[in-house]
Amino acid sequence: MTSILRRLSPSFLQKLKTGSKRRSLAVYIQRFQRSTDVSQNGRREKMKLGVLGCGRIAFLHVPNILSIPGLEISWILDNNADQISALKENFYLEDVQSYGTSDFDSLLDDNTLNGVVILSSTNTHTDYTCRALKKGKAVFVEKPAGESVEDIELCYNTAQQYNTPLLTGYNRRFDPTFSSLQKSFHAGDIGDPVFIKLTSRDCPRPSLDFLKNCDTTGCNILSDLGIHDIDTLVWLTKAEQPESIFVQTHAHDEVMNKMGVDDALMMMVKYKSGLIASIDVVRDSVYGYDIRVEIFGSGGMLSGDPQREVSLRTDQAGKCNTSSLLYSFNQRFSQAYRNEIEHFIRCIEGTEKPLITAKESVLTARIIEKGLESWRNKTVAYF
Amino acid sequence: MTSILRRLSPSFLQKLKTGSKRRSLAVYIQRFQRSTDVSQNGRREKMKLGVLGCGRIAFLHVPNILSIPGLEISWILDNNADQISALKENFYLEDVQSYGTSDFDSLLDDNTLNGVVILSSTNTHTDYTCRALKKGKAVFVEKPAGESVEDIELCYNTAQQYNTPLLTGYNRRFDPTFSSLQKSFHAGDIGDPVFIKLTSRDCPRPSLDFLKNCDTTGCNILSDLGIHDIDTLVWLTKAEQPESIFVQTHAHDEVMNKMGVDDALMMMVKYKSGLIASIDVVRDSVYGYDIRVEIFGSGGMLSGDPQREVSLRTDQAGKCNTSSLLYSFNQRFSQAYRNEIEHFIRCIEGTEKPLITAKESVLTARIIEKGLESWRNKTVAYF
Amino acid sequence: MTSILRRLSPSFLQKLKTGSKRRSLAVYIQRFQRSTDVSQNGRREKMKLGVLGCGRIAFLHVPNILSIPGLEISWILDNNADQISALKENFYLEDVQSYGTSDFDSLLDDNTLNGVVILSSTNTHTDYTCRALKKGKAVFVEKPAGESVEDIELCYNTAQQYNTPLLTGYNRRFDPTFSSLQKSFHAGDIGDPVFIKLTSRDCPRPSLDFLKNCDTTGCNILSDLGIHDIDTLVWLTKAEQPESIFVQTHAHDEVMNKMGVDDALMMMVKYKSGLIASIDVVRDSVYGYDIRVEIFGSGGMLSGDPQREVSLRTDQAGKCNTSSLLYSFNQRFSQAYRNEIEHFIRCIEGTEKPLITAKESVLTARIIEKGLESWRNKTVAYF
Amino acid sequence: MTSILRRLSPSFLQKLKTGSKRRSLAVYIQRFQRSTDVSQNGRREKMKLGVLGCGRIAFLHVPNILSIPGLEISWILDNNADQISALKENFYLEDVQSYGTSDFDSLLDDNTLNGVVILSSTNTHTDYTCRALKKGKAVFVEKPAGESVEDIELCYNTAQQYNTPLLTGYNRRFDPTFSSLQKSFHAGDIGDPVFIKLTSRDCPRPSLDFLKNCDTTGCNILSDLGIHDIDTLVWLTKAEQPESIFVQTHAHDEVMNKMGVDDALMMMVKYKSGLIASIDVVRDSVYGYDIRVEIFGSGGMLSGDPQREVSLRTDQAGKCNTSSLLYSFNQRFSQAYRNEIEHFIRCIEGTEKPLITAKESVLTARIIEKGLESWRNKTVAYF
Repeated sequence: MTSILRRLSPSFLQKLKTGSKRRSLAVYIQRFQRSTDVSQNGRREKMKLGVLGCGRIAFLHVPNILSIPGLEISWILDNNADQISALKENFYLEDVQSYGTSDFDSLLDDNTLNGVVILSSTNTHTDYTCRALKKGKAVFVEKPAGESVEDIELCYNTAQQYNTPLLTGYNRRFDPTFSSLQKSFHAGDIGDPVFIKLTSRDCPRPSLDFLKNCDTTGCNILSDLGIHDIDTLVWLTKAEQPESIFVQTHAHDEVMNKMGVDDALMMMVKYKSGLIASIDVVRDSVYGYDIRVEIFGSGGMLSGDPQREVSLRTDQAGKCNTSSLLYSFNQRFSQAYRNEIEHFIRCIEGTEKPLITAKESVLTARIIEKGLESWRNKTVAYF
Repeated sequence: MTSILRRLSPSFLQKLKTGSKRRSLAVYIQRFQRSTDVSQNGRREKMKLGVLGCGRIAFLHVPNILSIPGLEISWILDNNADQISALKENFYLEDVQSYGTSDFDSLLDDNTLNGVVILSSTNTHTDYTCRALKKGKAVFVEKPAGESVEDIELCYNTAQQYNTPLLTGYNRRFDPTFSSLQKSFHAGDIGDPVFIKLTSRDCPRPSLDFLKNCDTTGCNILSDLGIHDIDTLVWLTKAEQPESIFVQTHAHDEVMNKMGVDDALMMMVKYKSGLIASIDVVRDSVYGYDIRVEIFGSGGMLSGDPQREVSLRTDQAGKCNTSSLLYSFNQRFSQAYRNEIEHFIRCIEGTEKPLITAKESVLTARIIEKGLESWRNKTVAYF
Repeated sequence: MTSILRRLSPSFLQKLKTGSKRRSLAVYIQRFQRSTDVSQNGRREKMKLGVLGCGRIAFLHVPNILSIPGLEISWILDNNADQISALKENFYLEDVQSYGTSDFDSLLDDNTLNGVVILSSTNTHTDYTCRALKKGKAVFVEKPAGESVEDIELCYNTAQQYNTPLLTGYNRRFDPTFSSLQKSFHAGDIGDPVFIKLTSRDCPRPSLDFLKNCDTTGCNILSDLGIHDIDTLVWLTKAEQPESIFVQTHAHDEVMNKMGVDDALMMMVKYKSGLIASIDVVRDSVYGYDIRVEIFGSGGMLSGDPQREVSLRTDQAGKCNTSSLLYSFNQRFSQAYRNEIEHFIRCIEGTEKPLITAKESVLTARIIEKGLESWRNKTVAYF
Repeated sequence: MTSILRRLSPSFLQKLKTGSKRRSLAVYIQRFQRSTDVSQNGRREKMKLGVLGCGRIAFLHVPNILSIPGLEISWILDNNADQISALKENFYLEDVQSYGTSDFDSLLDDNTLNGVVILSSTNTHTDYTCRALKKGKAVFVEKPAGESVEDIELCYNTAQQYNTPLLTGYNRRFDPTFSSLQKSFHAGDIGDPVFIKLTSRDCPRPSLDFLKNCDTTGCNILSDLGIHDIDTLVWLTKAEQPESIFVQTHAHDEVMNKMGVDDALMMMVKYKSGLIASIDVVRDSVYGYDIRVEIFGSGGMLSGDPQREVSLRTDQAGKCNTSSLLYSFNQRFSQAYRNEIEHFIRCIEGTEKPLITAKESVLTARIIEKGLESWRNKTVAYF
C-alpha cells in the first residue's frame, strides 16, 4: 500500500483529498496499514508455489494461499487421484497441473516455481524437504520436518548447506495472542519465569480409526498433539536445555482404553534455572478447542486465553451465558495459518528469516523422545 | 464440501479411513463444516462480478471477493484512472478490463456477468442501481441505496418489478456477534424489549478534509455513521414505527468546532410499545473501534460487546493489562464483510433472500430525516 | 493497628519475629493494612450512635454499625413498637433503650451520644436533621436530606451554622468501583468527558403496594431510584450546571400500567461544555441488580461494571455459563454501606469532611425537579 | 429473619404493608434472605466462645466473630501478654477475661462457654483440641488439626468418642466460588474428571524470618501453603486414594536459595481412575493473591477464577487496564472466613455436620507425607 503512495504524484493525492465527500485515501491508508493484510508491505512480485499432499491439512492451507493477493498454486502432487480431484474441484483449481508424487523431480525442475509446500504424511517429510532444498526450492513443511532427531537435523543442515529457506509449520507461533505473549515475555515484562503452563485440548476428537493406529513412536498424543506445546515451550525458553521430564497418561475413552491408546497426558518439565513447566493435553474437549499458555514470573503473569465464537452475553435470572470457545483449529488459528504462509513468502523474498530454527526443531524432537521414555518407563527421564 | 462427499464412492471413503495415519476425511469434513468457509455449502458455479468505484471501500471489498473460491472480478469502472491503477496493482488485477463509468452500459450488456458491486459515491447509488436492476443484474450497493426516502423506494421498487436481487451493504447485520444477538432476541430469549442501547465510536477519526465537507444533509455524523445504528435498531424492532426522536450534538474537536461540524451525537428514540432506544455516536475514539449493542428486556439482557486484538492478559503489581479493542472497521467487521458478499452470492443463486428489506431501508432513511429535524430544531421530532 | 506498633517495645517486636514459626506480626500488619478494615487507622475512641427509624434500611445499617469495632448503638427511636422489637431481637439489642420519636429531644440531650443516624421516612428528614445539628449532634441522614431544594439547603445551612458534620447517604460514592472510577476520571486519565452513561436496574422489583403509592412528587422512579445516578453525575461533573434535560418514561408492567405508574425511564442531560449524559432506570431487572457507569472521554473510556456472585465459569458443549450478577443492593453495596458509616465516623472525629457537599445535594434536587418538569410536559426542560 | 415473620401477627404484617411509603417488610425480607447474613436462619441463642492464641490469625477471626450478631468472646488465652493486649485493645475487648494458656482447664470448666477457637501454633493443636473435646466443648481449630497423621486421627477419634463437633479451618471450602464449583462438579455438570489444576500463589511474600525457619517437616511450602490445595483436591475427589505423586521444587529468591528453602513447587498427583491433578504453589506473587481451581472433565470445564479489587476498566490508546487481583488472603477469603465461623456455630447448634471429615483430614496429611517423600527422594512416590 505504501508503495502505491510513494508513486502517487502530489497533485493526484491532492485531488483525492478534495474531489469528493468520500473519506480521503490518506485516512483509508492509515486504517488499512493497521490491518494484517499483506498489502501493507507493498506489492511484491507474483509467486508460484507447488503443493505436495492433498489430505486434510491441504484443505486448510490451499484456500489460505489462494486468498493472498499475488500467490498462485502451479503444481499439485498426490498419489491419490480422488483426493487431488476433491481439492481441485473445491477450490476451482481445474487449470493447475497435477500428478503423482513420482513427478516431484519434474516439479523441482520448474524454474518458475518459488517454493514447495509439503503436506504429505510425516514419514515422507525429510525426503521431500531435502530434495527440494538441494534444488534451491524454498520449503514449507508441516510439523515436524522428520520423524527423528537425525532426520530433522538432516533437513536443517541441508537448508544451511544450500542456503535455502526451510520453514517448519508450527502454526501457534504465528497466532497473534501467542506472538504477543512471547514478545512481552522476552521483553522482560514479567521478569524471570517460575512456571510455564501449557494446555492443548483438541476438539472435536479425531476418529477412532485415526487414533487406533497410534503407537508411542508415531501419532501418539505426545508426538501428534503435545508437540505444539513443546514447540511453544522451546520457543519461550529460547531453546534452554531441560533437566528432567515426567509424564503421566491415561485412556479415558472406553474404546481407546481397550485399544491401549491413551487420550489424556500431563507432563512436568524441569529446568536448571528453576523453571518448571506443565503441559496438559487431551484428545476430546467437548466445549471447544482450548489452547492456552500461562507464564508466571517474578514480575507478574502473562495469560494467553482461548477466544470465543462471538462476543455475546445473555444475562438471565440466576445465570449468564457467553459464547462457547472457537470450535476447532481452523477457527482458532485461521489468522495464524495465514500469517505463517505470509512469513514463508517473506522468507522466500529474503526479508525475514524462518522463525523456527534448527536448534529449536531438534530440541523439540529430543524433548519428545525423553517424554516417550518417561511414559514407557513410568519414571522421571533426565537429559 | 458435502457435495464432494455425496459423490465419493463408499469404497473410496473406506480407503480414506484406513489407508493412512492421517486423520480421516470424515473428521476433517466434520470440522470444516463448522468453519464459516463458503465451501461448506458445496461447490457453486463460478461467478463473475463487476465493480463500480475504486475508492476506499473498494480496497476492502475487492480482496474479500477475490478470497472466495469461485468468484472472479471481470469489470472495473471508475472515472479516476489513478485509483483504478492503484486497485488493480494492489490486487494483481492487471488482466481485468477497466473503463470510465460511462461504460456502465457496456458492463450491463455483458451476459457472462452475474452481478454488480456498486461502491461509488452515495449520490450515484440510485442511478446505477436502477439501471443495473432493469438489465436483470443483481446489485450489491454500499449503504444507503439513495440519498432520500424516495430514491431508496425507487431502488427497491425497481428490484421488485424486475424480480432481481438488491442487497444494500449494512455490514453489521452480517457480523457474527450482532447476528447472534438478533437471533436470540427475536427468539424471545429476553422477553419484551425495554431499552435498546447502541454505540458507534469511530477509530481513527476521519480526516478533517473529509469532515469539513459535512453538512446536515450529507455525510453528517448521523447520516454517515449513526445510520448503522439506526439500521440495527430497525432490524431489531422489525421495522416498528417510532413515536418520537430527540437528538443532542456537540463539536468537541477545536477545528471542527470552528467549522461548525459536530463530532458527537446522542439520540433517544421512543416507541409506542414503550421501548426507548439510545444511540451514542462519536467520530474519534482513541482506544479503538467501539461498536456495541445492548438490549434490556423483561426477561434479561443481551450484550454484544466489542472484541479485542488479542487474548492476552498481563497481571503485574497493582494492575492488569489486556489488549486494546480492534482498531478499526476493517478488523472489527472483516468477517461481516465476507459474510455479506457470500450472502449476496446466495441471493444471486436464489438460495437466500436479501436480508435488508425495502421497508427497513425506507424506515432507516425516515428516522434519519426525523433525527436531522430534531437536530436542526433542537426539540423533539414526532413521526 | 499502627498505633499498636508504635507502642510496642523493640524487644517485644524482636521476640515476635523470632519466637515462633508463625508469620511475624510485621508481615501480618503489612497485609492487614491493605484490608479495608477500620483498624488500619488505629484505635479510636469508642463512639455511641442513636438510630431513628427501624424500617427496612435500618436492618441494613444497624448490623453494619455493630460490626465496626468500637461503635455502639445506644438509642433506638421509632413509633412502631413492633418494628423496634423486630430490630432489637434480630440484632441482640435488648439492652438498648428505645422509645417513640417524641423522645428525640431526650436523645439529643444525651451528652454521651456522638451522632444520630436518621433512617425515618423522607418527609421527616429535614426536621430531625436540623434539630440534631442545632444540638451539635453529627448527622447521618439517608438520601435525600429533604423533599425540596429549600429543605436540603436548610439542612446544609444549619450544619454550617452549627459547624456540625452532616452526611447524606448517597451510598454509591463509597463503592470501591465507583470511587476508583471517579478518582481516575478526576485525575484526567481519559481527558475531557464526551458522554457519561449511567444505569440503575433494580432487583428484585419493589412490591406493588410500595409502587402504587408513588407519584411525581414522591417516590417516583426518578426521585426514588434515578436520584442515585443523578448524584453520581453531579459528583463526576463537580456539580457543573446542566443546560437541559429530556425524560422519556413508560409503564411496562401491566398492573403498574393500569395504576399509571411508570417503571422505566431514560433521560438525557446536556451541558454547556458539550458533555451529554444518559441515564436509564428500570424497576425490575430479572437478572440481578445492574448498576453501571461509563465515561467516554477524549483520551479513553472508564467503565464501572457490575459484579457477579461468584467467579465460576462452566464451559460445556456449545455454551459457557458464568454466575449471575449480585442479586440486590445489599450484596452489591455491602462494602459501600460500611465505608459510608466509617466515613461518617471520621467526619465526627474531624479527620475527614463529608464527601457529599451542600452544593451537590442541592444540584441533585434541582436536576430532579427539572427532570420531573420534562416528564410532565413531555418536552425538553432548560436550566 | 423468617423466625420473626413466623411470630408476627397477620394484622401487624398488614400494617407494615400499608402504613407508609417505605418498601414493605415483605420485600425487604425477600431481598435480605438472598444475602449471606446469618440472620436469614432466624435468631439463635446467644453463644460464647473462647479464643486460644492471639497471633496473626486471631486478628482475622476475632473481628469476624464479633461481627456476627449473637456471638460473644468470653475468654482469651495466650502466653504472650503483649499480644493479648494488642488484640483486646484493637477490638475493644477490655472487659473479656484473659490468661495464660495454663488456664485452659479453667476455660474448659466454664459451663457457659459454647465452643473453643484454637488459633495457637500447629504443634499445640492436637493437645488443646483433644482436651476441649473431652470436656464436651465444640472445637474450631486452624488447619491442620495436628502435625502428623496420627495426631489428626487422634483428634477426630476423640471428637467421635465424645460426640462433640470438631471443625478444622480449611477456609477455602467456605469460599462461595470454590463452594459453587464443588457443588456443580459433584452434581455431575462436567462428567468424569480428567484433570484438576490447582494454583496457590501467595501475596505478599511472608517475611524471610518466617521462611528461614521452614524445613521439610514444618512450615515448608507444601505443608504450609500447598496444604490448602491438597485439601481442595481431597474434597473434590471425595477422598479418593491417589496412586502416585511427584514433586518438583526450586528456590528462586536469592536469600532463600542460600538458606536452602524452596519458594516454588509443582506437583502431579495420579489416581487409579485416570484423574491427573497438578498443583503449582509459589511464595511470592507480585500481582496479588492468586488462588484458582480448574476441573476438566468428559462433559466440560469448571473454572474458579480469582477476583479483582474493583470492576473498573480503563480503555486507552493501545491498551486496556483492569484492576489487580485482590491483594491477600484476608481480602480474597473474607466471606469464606465468615462462612466458616457461621458453619461452626451451626455445628454447635446441631443443624449441620462439620464439612471437613476425619477421612479427608487424614488423607490430606498422608498426601503431604508422600509429597515430602517425593521431594526428598526426587522421584515418584507411590501410595
